Amino acid sequence: MSLRKSNVDGPLRGITVVDLTRVLAGPYCTMVLADLGARVIKVENPSTGDDSRSFGPFTKGGSAYFASLNRGKESIAIDLKDPNEKILFDRLLRHSDVLIENYRPGVLGRLGYDWEIIHDQFPRLIYLALSGFGRTGPYAQRPAYDLVVQAMGGIMSLTGQLGGEPTRVGSSIGDITAGLYGAIGITAALHERKSSDKGCMVDLGMLDCQVAILENAIARVFTTDHVPGPIGSRHPTITPFSSFPTSDGHIVVACGNNVLFYKFADCLGVPELATDSRFLDNALRTLHVDDLTAKIEFHTRKRSSSEWLELLLEAGIPCGPINNVQQVVDDPHIASRNMLVSLEDSKPSELKVAGNPLKFSKYADPVTRDSAPELDENRESIVRELDALDS
Amino acid sequence: MSLRKSNVDGPLRGITVVDLTRVLAGPYCTMVLADLGARVIKVENPSTGDDSRSFGPFTKGGSAYFASLNRGKESIAIDLKDPNEKILFDRLLRHSDVLIENYRPGVLGRLGYDWEIIHDQFPRLIYLALSGFGRTGPYAQRPAYDLVVQAMGGIMSLTGQLGGEPTRVGSSIGDITAGLYGAIGITAALHERKSSDKGCMVDLGMLDCQVAILENAIARVFTTDHVPGPIGSRHPTITPFSSFPTSDGHIVVACGNNVLFYKFADCLGVPELATDSRFLDNALRTLHVDDLTAKIEFHTRKRSSSEWLELLLEAGIPCGPINNVQQVVDDPHIASRNMLVSLEDSKPSELKVAGNPLKFSKYADPVTRDSAPELDENRESIVRELDALDS
Repeated sequence: MSLRKSNVDGPLRGITVVDLTRVLAGPYCTMVLADLGARVIKVENPSTGDDSRSFGPFTKGGSAYFASLNRGKESIAIDLKDPNEKILFDRLLRHSDVLIENYRPGVLGRLGYDWEIIHDQFPRLIYLALSGFGRTGPYAQRPAYDLVVQAMGGIMSLTGQLGGEPTRVGSSIGDITAGLYGAIGITAALHERKSSDKGCMVDLGMLDCQVAILENAIARVFTTDHVPGPIGSRHPTITPFSSFPTSDGHIVVACGNNVLFYKFADCLGVPELATDSRFLDNALRTLHVDDLTAKIEFHTRKRSSSEWLELLLEAGIPCGPINNVQQVVDDPHIASRNMLVSLEDSKPSELKVAGNPLKFSKYADPVTRDSAPELDENRESIVRELDALDS
Repeated sequence: MSLRKSNVDGPLRGITVVDLTRVLAGPYCTMVLADLGARVIKVENPSTGDDSRSFGPFTKGGSAYFASLNRGKESIAIDLKDPNEKILFDRLLRHSDVLIENYRPGVLGRLGYDWEIIHDQFPRLIYLALSGFGRTGPYAQRPAYDLVVQAMGGIMSLTGQLGGEPTRVGSSIGDITAGLYGAIGITAALHERKSSDKGCMVDLGMLDCQVAILENAIARVFTTDHVPGPIGSRHPTITPFSSFPTSDGHIVVACGNNVLFYKFADCLGVPELATDSRFLDNALRTLHVDDLTAKIEFHTRKRSSSEWLELLLEAGIPCGPINNVQQVVDDPHIASRNMLVSLEDSKPSELKVAGNPLKFSKYADPVTRDSAPELDENRESIVRELDALDS
């Protein structure tokens, strides 16, 4: 006997996740797991619930921020400082597969849930402890938000206009990257548990995840004397690979090799760029990037973005518009990929939310998701299920 | 009998991944899998191998770009247009668990490897097809690079200084996000295969992943008339939550609630901000963000970054320096978390690369990784293994 399964069919169907997380990194992780078919039960504090229930933007049904991250989950309010309520929480853990929390390291332990105790009582339970800086090291007890790890992890120092200020990435990549790594850790541990029948703990720090996405910037620091800084929208080592002004906006063009560059020069009407000794290969083009950019921009300014994109796509050159978020949600390709899904019984009713980019041959990709729960909305049915299992 | 296991102990130990991918999104995905204990065999074209073998930065052993993404993998060069070589490739697939490729949709099919054929011949094989736009929809056949999906997916429109140009995120988040989602899809499919004993296909588009990380920007488009644009380093709906100038640089401060804001006002020496009717709660502070920012900056400019950080951390306010990549690699916390690992027999020898942010209670987190392979370096040993298995 076990808890009932999620309504969503997917590779994690039959898995139950007890989710103590708030705001973004943790809820993003469990949203990914829910999209894969896991049943996610949010355990919230009874007074206010997940902090993000009070985050804008709002609509008539409440926080659209909360609704978009917590679609398809259930909610039960449990006060972990109340001994009677802890009994309920323990009963829930006993029938679940995964526990995830994003308290500061040590907080859950002080409530009686050290990993050693968890593992002894619930040997199959997988436990993801997600925090700003991880459970060890000098900063372990520091408070963190997305902005703090974006700043400390180096990505802000690489983002921005040439010579300008370091700039925050415009979505909460510090949280989201940690949520994605968390989902990898949990699914890998679930795979392994099928052999060992034992759970394990995963210690995940948001700052560590920022280091993991620095990519070639780390290699550049170790192999050159140059510390990379913001360079606008161009690639540091591939040229031309940047945004360019048109008569009515900007487009991006990405010439990853010589052939693409030669075609691009043809499209611009200046085939002689391809035989210019300064631009013969990628290394030379990167060395003379300012000269080349000036020449390219002189020509790209002559036509509109849509004229350029038609011409360049016809020639097979990787390029695209720089879409704002309205243009993204209006894009027919995004719609055809089911990347904006509706909420069932939608509160807020007009809201669409991001779909699941993982399209499995084995499972349908539903065009709707269950809406996010009210605080404690599913208490009664969860308690009834536990009573049936424990009787 | 099966292929030998990876040297790395982890939840995916015993899994073999055949990796046809090049450059970044795919190799990032298989790097994550290798860190989890999977054995990753790169199948490269015999003429040049993975394109990124020729990408800078370079050091005496070759491309540091390639070395950092392909550490711990093996290489075999196979020409998939040669019928004899295809027999070898098929033998490899027969003994492997996962196939991953990032050709444009249809390319692998034309080489004889449609999903239906793969699934019929190798029913347990899991197949991740990773492309710019996915296998369906109007843009399926378009070429894509990181820059193109960053531009089309909206994140550039959210990144940059207020009123300034849309800005590329300074690391290849378009590739990396797809790599992380790919790792989630594969591990989830591996978990499911333990029950069904059947593989499945995962169709993953980089642009779809960009939509999935837009976060509250999508909710804002659906609930307000405002299309979000770049706003510098501040958070769109939480205030104060931004970078601030000091006497010698910038720091970030993230006040996610009223209590933190009141403490911050105290630290600044202007406790009266907390009772100012314009700044009483987060919604009001966000409405009057320009007034508040001017007041905060007036005070933050008076001291150095390190003085402010000491004061604010003492008060428990989430804050941090804006580190450049040199400062990141020199940070003692990053070192203590083993987030920079050395390469065995290191070519390039002085190179350190990003470690694995997933710290499992069950497995060691090694301080070194095997170095990246030369093109075709492991052919002999792989063929010998296959001969033993097939004899």
